[in-house]
Amino acid sequence: MSGTSSQASAVPEGVALSHDEDLVAAMDFGKDADGLVPAVVQDAADGTVLTVAYMDAEALRRTLESGRTWFYSRSRQEYWQKGETSGDRQYVREVRLDCDGDALVVLVDQHGRGACHTGARTCFYRTIGSGPGVPAP
Amino acid sequence: MSGTSSQASAVPEGVALSHDEDLVAAMDFGKDADGLVPAVVQDAADGTVLTVAYMDAEALRRTLESGRTWFYSRSRQEYWQKGETSGDRQYVREVRLDCDGDALVVLVDQHGRGACHTGARTCFYRTIGSGPGVPAP
Repeated sequence: MSGTSSQASAVPEGVALSHDEDLVAAMDFGKDADGLVPAVVQDAADGTVLTVAYMDAEALRRTLESGRTWFYSRSRQEYWQKGETSGDRQYVREVRLDCDGDALVVLVDQHGRGACHTGARTCFYRTIGSGPGVPAP
Repeated sequence: MSGTSSQASAVPEGVALSHDEDLVAAMDFGKDADGLVPAVVQDAADGTVLTVAYMDAEALRRTLESGRTWFYSRSRQEYWQKGETSGDRQYVREVRLDCDGDALVVLVDQHGRGACHTGARTCFYRTIGSGPGVPAP
Protein backbone atom coordinates (compact mmCIF):
# COMPACT_ATOMS: atom_id res chain seq x y z
CA MET A 1 0.00 0.00 0.00
CA SER A 2 1.07 3.55 -0.54
CA GLY A 3 -0.50 6.96 -0.24
CA THR A 4 -0.78 9.93 2.00
CA SER A 5 -2.15 8.03 4.97
CA SER A 6 1.06 6.06 5.37
CA GLN A 7 3.07 9.29 5.14
CA ALA A 8 1.38 10.88 8.14
CA SER A 9 3.64 10.72 11.20
CA ALA A 10 1.97 8.90 14.03
CA VAL A 11 1.37 11.17 16.98
CA PRO A 12 0.69 9.07 20.04
CA GLU A 13 -2.39 9.84 22.07
CA GLY A 14 -1.89 11.01 25.62
CA VAL A 15 -3.09 8.73 28.40
CA ALA A 16 -5.48 10.23 30.96
CA LEU A 17 -4.13 10.31 34.50
CA SER A 18 -5.89 8.61 37.35
CA HIS A 19 -6.28 11.40 39.85
CA ASP A 20 -7.54 12.38 43.27
CA GLU A 21 -10.39 14.91 43.14
CA ASP A 22 -9.84 15.87 46.78
CA LEU A 23 -6.30 16.96 45.91
CA VAL A 24 -7.52 18.79 42.79
CA ALA A 25 -9.90 20.65 45.12
CA ALA A 26 -7.02 21.36 47.50
CA MET A 27 -5.41 23.59 44.90
CA ASP A 28 -5.53 27.28 45.77
CA PHE A 29 -5.70 29.22 42.52
CA GLY A 30 -6.95 32.33 44.27
CA LYS A 31 -3.64 33.81 45.47
CA ASP A 32 -2.92 35.14 42.01
CA ALA A 33 -5.25 37.76 40.54
CA ASP A 34 -5.42 35.75 37.29
CA GLY A 35 -6.12 32.43 39.04
CA LEU A 36 -2.81 30.97 37.90
CA VAL A 37 -0.14 28.90 39.61
CA PRO A 38 3.36 28.10 38.31
CA ALA A 39 3.77 24.58 36.94
CA VAL A 40 7.34 23.28 37.06
CA VAL A 41 7.77 20.79 34.24
CA GLN A 42 10.41 18.22 35.04
CA ASP A 43 11.80 15.44 32.85
CA ALA A 44 10.55 12.17 34.35
CA ALA A 45 13.69 10.39 33.22
CA ASP A 46 16.41 12.47 34.86
CA GLY A 47 14.78 15.28 36.84
CA THR A 48 15.93 18.14 34.60
CA VAL A 49 13.68 21.18 35.05
CA LEU A 50 12.52 21.76 31.50
CA THR A 51 10.30 24.83 31.80
CA VAL A 52 8.03 26.82 34.08
CA ALA A 53 4.60 27.69 32.70
CA TYR A 54 1.22 28.54 34.23
CA MET A 55 -1.95 26.61 34.87
CA ASP A 56 -5.37 27.62 36.09
CA ALA A 57 -8.02 25.11 37.17
CA GLU A 58 -9.10 24.49 33.58
CA ALA A 59 -5.54 23.90 32.31
CA LEU A 60 -4.95 21.45 35.16
CA ARG A 61 -8.19 19.65 34.28
CA ARG A 62 -7.23 19.40 30.62
CA THR A 63 -3.76 18.11 31.57
CA LEU A 64 -5.16 15.37 33.82
CA GLU A 65 -7.76 14.31 31.25
CA SER A 66 -5.58 14.43 28.13
CA GLY A 67 -2.29 13.19 29.60
CA ARG A 68 -0.48 16.02 27.85
CA THR A 69 0.46 19.41 29.26
CA TRP A 70 -1.97 22.30 28.87
CA PHE A 71 -1.03 25.77 30.07
CA TYR A 72 -2.49 29.25 30.15
CA SER A 73 -0.48 31.95 28.44
CA ARG A 74 -0.30 35.17 30.46
CA SER A 75 0.74 37.20 27.41
CA ARG A 76 -1.68 35.75 24.86
CA GLN A 77 -4.42 35.11 27.42
CA GLU A 78 -5.33 31.76 25.97
CA TYR A 79 -4.93 28.06 26.65
CA TRP A 80 -2.22 26.23 24.78
CA GLN A 81 -1.21 22.60 24.57
CA LYS A 82 2.56 22.17 24.58
CA GLY A 83 3.87 20.87 21.27
CA GLU A 84 0.67 21.36 19.28
CA THR A 85 2.51 23.76 16.96
CA SER A 86 6.14 22.69 17.44
CA GLY A 87 5.63 18.95 17.79
CA ASP A 88 7.61 19.06 21.03
CA ARG A 89 4.91 17.33 23.07
CA GLN A 90 4.94 16.53 26.77
CA TYR A 91 3.25 13.31 27.94
CA VAL A 92 2.47 13.41 31.63
CA ARG A 93 3.46 10.76 34.15
CA GLU A 94 2.69 12.56 37.37
CA VAL A 95 1.32 15.82 38.78
CA ARG A 96 2.23 16.90 42.31
CA LEU A 97 0.99 19.84 44.35
CA ASP A 98 2.87 21.66 47.05
CA CYS A 99 2.07 22.02 50.74
CA ASP A 100 -0.13 25.08 50.32
CA GLY A 101 -1.58 24.18 46.93
CA ASP A 102 -0.23 27.13 44.98
CA ALA A 103 2.36 25.43 42.78
CA LEU A 104 2.59 22.23 40.71
CA VAL A 105 5.32 19.86 39.60
CA VAL A 106 4.57 17.97 36.39
CA LEU A 107 6.74 14.98 35.46
CA VAL A 108 6.77 14.35 31.73
CA ASP A 109 8.12 12.31 28.88
CA GLN A 110 9.45 15.05 26.59
CA HIS A 111 9.10 14.29 22.88
CA GLY A 112 10.59 16.22 19.96
CA ARG A 113 13.60 18.50 20.32
CA GLY A 114 12.93 19.62 23.86
CA ALA A 115 10.85 21.97 25.95
CA CYS A 116 12.23 25.35 24.90
CA HIS A 117 10.96 27.38 21.96
CA THR A 118 14.65 28.06 21.12
CA GLY A 119 15.15 24.38 20.36
CA ALA A 120 17.07 23.76 23.58
CA ARG A 121 16.12 20.78 25.69
CA THR A 122 15.44 22.99 28.73
CA CYS A 123 14.51 26.66 28.97
CA PHE A 124 17.08 26.96 31.79
CA TYR A 125 20.19 26.70 29.60
CA ARG A 126 21.96 29.78 31.03
CA THR A 127 23.72 30.09 34.40
CA ILE A 128 23.62 33.49 36.16
CA GLY A 129 25.89 32.48 39.01
CA SER A 130 27.69 29.55 40.58
CA GLY A 131 29.65 28.67 43.70
CA PRO A 132 30.72 25.76 45.85
CA GLY A 133 27.67 25.68 48.12
CA VAL A 134 28.10 24.14 51.56
CA PRO A 135 27.57 20.37 51.70
CA ALA A 136 25.14 19.36 54.42
CA PRO A 137 26.91 18.08 57.54
CA MET B 1 37.73 24.60 78.01
CA SER B 2 34.05 24.81 78.66
CA GLY B 3 31.40 27.47 78.50
CA THR B 4 28.56 28.75 76.39
CA SER B 5 30.70 29.54 73.38
CA SER B 6 31.50 25.89 72.78
CA GLN B 7 27.79 25.04 73.09
CA ALA B 8 26.71 27.28 70.21
CA SER B 9 25.98 25.25 67.10
CA ALA B 10 28.18 26.35 64.24
CA VAL B 11 26.13 27.78 61.38
CA PRO B 12 28.29 27.82 58.26
CA GLU B 13 28.51 31.06 56.32
CA GLY B 14 27.18 31.07 52.81
CA VAL B 15 29.66 31.54 49.98
CA ALA B 16 28.98 34.36 47.52
CA LEU B 17 28.39 33.22 43.96
CA SER B 18 30.51 34.40 41.10
CA HIS B 19 27.94 35.76 38.69
CA ASP B 20 27.37 37.38 35.34
CA GLU B 21 25.92 40.89 35.61
CA ASP B 22 24.75 40.79 31.99
CA LEU B 23 22.57 37.81 32.81
CA VAL B 24 21.33 39.45 36.01
CA ALA B 25 20.29 42.37 33.79
CA ALA B 26 18.64 39.94 31.36
CA MET B 27 16.04 39.08 34.00
CA ASP B 28 12.58 40.43 33.23
CA PHE B 29 10.87 41.13 36.55
CA GLY B 30 8.30 43.39 34.93
CA LYS B 31 5.81 40.79 33.71
CA ASP B 32 4.38 40.45 37.18
CA ALA B 33 2.71 43.47 38.78
CA ASP B 34 4.73 42.87 41.96
CA GLY B 35 8.06 42.48 40.14
CA LEU B 36 8.36 38.84 41.16
CA VAL B 37 9.41 35.69 39.33
CA PRO B 38 9.04 32.09 40.52
CA ALA B 39 12.26 30.50 41.78
CA VAL B 40 12.31 26.71 41.54
CA VAL B 41 14.58 25.40 44.28
CA GLN B 42 16.11 22.08 43.34
CA ASP B 43 18.32 19.81 45.42
CA ALA B 44 21.80 19.96 43.85
CA ALA B 45 22.47 16.37 44.88
CA ASP B 46 19.58 14.53 43.24
CA GLY B 47 17.41 17.05 41.38
CA THR B 48 14.39 16.85 43.66
CA VAL B 49 12.24 19.98 43.35
CA LEU B 50 12.15 21.17 46.95
CA THR B 51 9.98 24.27 46.78
CA VAL B 52 8.80 27.14 44.64
CA ALA B 53 9.12 30.62 46.09
CA TYR B 54 9.40 34.12 44.66
CA MET B 55 12.27 36.52 44.03
CA ASP B 56 12.43 40.10 42.92
CA ALA B 57 15.64 41.83 41.82
CA GLU B 58 16.65 42.52 45.42
CA ALA B 59 16.06 38.93 46.58
CA LEU B 60 18.12 37.65 43.64
CA ARG B 61 20.91 40.10 44.54
CA ARG B 62 20.89 38.99 48.18
CA THR B 63 20.96 35.34 47.11
CA LEU B 64 23.96 35.84 44.82
CA GLU B 65 25.88 37.86 47.40
CA SER B 66 25.12 35.74 50.48
CA GLY B 67 25.17 32.27 48.89
CA ARG B 68 21.93 31.45 50.69
CA THR B 69 18.39 31.72 49.36
CA TRP B 70 16.47 34.94 49.89
CA PHE B 71 12.86 35.22 48.79
CA TYR B 72 10.06 37.76 48.84
CA SER B 73 6.88 36.68 50.59
CA ARG B 74 3.74 37.62 48.67
CA SER B 75 1.55 37.24 51.76
CA ARG B 76 3.77 38.95 54.32
CA GLN B 77 5.21 41.42 51.79
CA GLU B 78 8.71 41.12 53.16
CA TYR B 79 12.05 39.55 52.35
CA TRP B 80 12.94 36.33 54.12
CA GLN B 81 16.02 34.19 54.18
CA LYS B 82 15.20 30.49 54.08
CA GLY B 83 16.07 28.74 57.32
CA GLU B 84 16.71 31.86 59.38
CA THR B 85 13.89 30.83 61.75
CA SER B 86 13.69 27.08 61.16
CA GLY B 87 17.39 26.34 60.72
CA ASP B 88 16.56 24.59 57.42
CA ARG B 89 19.03 26.65 55.41
CA GLN B 90 19.71 26.46 51.68
CA TYR B 91 23.27 27.05 50.44
CA VAL B 92 23.34 27.91 46.77
CA ARG B 93 25.47 26.18 44.16
CA GLU B 94 23.96 27.60 41.01
CA VAL B 95 21.30 29.99 39.73
CA ARG B 96 19.90 29.61 36.21
CA LEU B 97 17.49 31.81 34.29
CA ASP B 98 15.10 30.70 31.61
CA CYS B 99 14.94 31.69 27.95
CA ASP B 100 12.77 34.76 28.51
CA GLY B 101 14.18 35.73 31.90
CA ASP B 102 10.99 35.36 33.91
CA ALA B 103 11.79 32.29 36.01
CA LEU B 104 14.78 30.97 37.97
CA VAL B 105 16.14 27.57 38.95
CA VAL B 106 18.25 27.56 42.11
CA LEU B 107 20.38 24.49 42.90
CA VAL B 108 21.06 24.16 46.61
CA ASP B 109 22.60 22.13 49.38
CA GLN B 110 19.63 21.71 51.72
CA HIS B 111 20.52 21.69 55.41
CA GLY B 112 18.28 20.82 58.36
CA ARG B 113 15.12 18.76 58.00
CA GLY B 114 14.21 19.86 54.52
CA ALA B 115 12.63 22.65 52.54
CA CYS B 116 8.99 22.41 53.66
CA HIS B 117 7.55 24.18 56.70
CA THR B 118 5.72 20.90 57.46
CA GLY B 119 9.07 19.22 58.10
CA ALA B 120 8.94 17.29 54.83
CA ARG B 121 12.02 17.26 52.64
CA THR B 122 10.09 18.71 49.70
CA CYS B 123 6.93 20.81 49.59
CA PHE B 124 5.75 18.57 46.72
CA TYR B 125 5.01 15.49 48.82
CA ARG B 126 1.51 14.86 47.46
CA THR B 127 0.54 13.41 44.06
CA ILE B 128 -2.65 14.65 42.41
CA GLY B 129 -2.52 12.27 39.47
CA SER B 130 -0.37 9.67 37.78
CA GLY B 131 -0.25 7.62 34.62
CA PRO B 132 2.10 5.72 32.34
CA GLY B 133 3.12 8.64 30.12
CA VAL B 134 4.36 7.83 26.62
CA PRO B 135 8.09 7.08 26.39
CA ALA B 136 9.81 9.13 23.71
CA PRO B 137 10.40 7.13 20.53
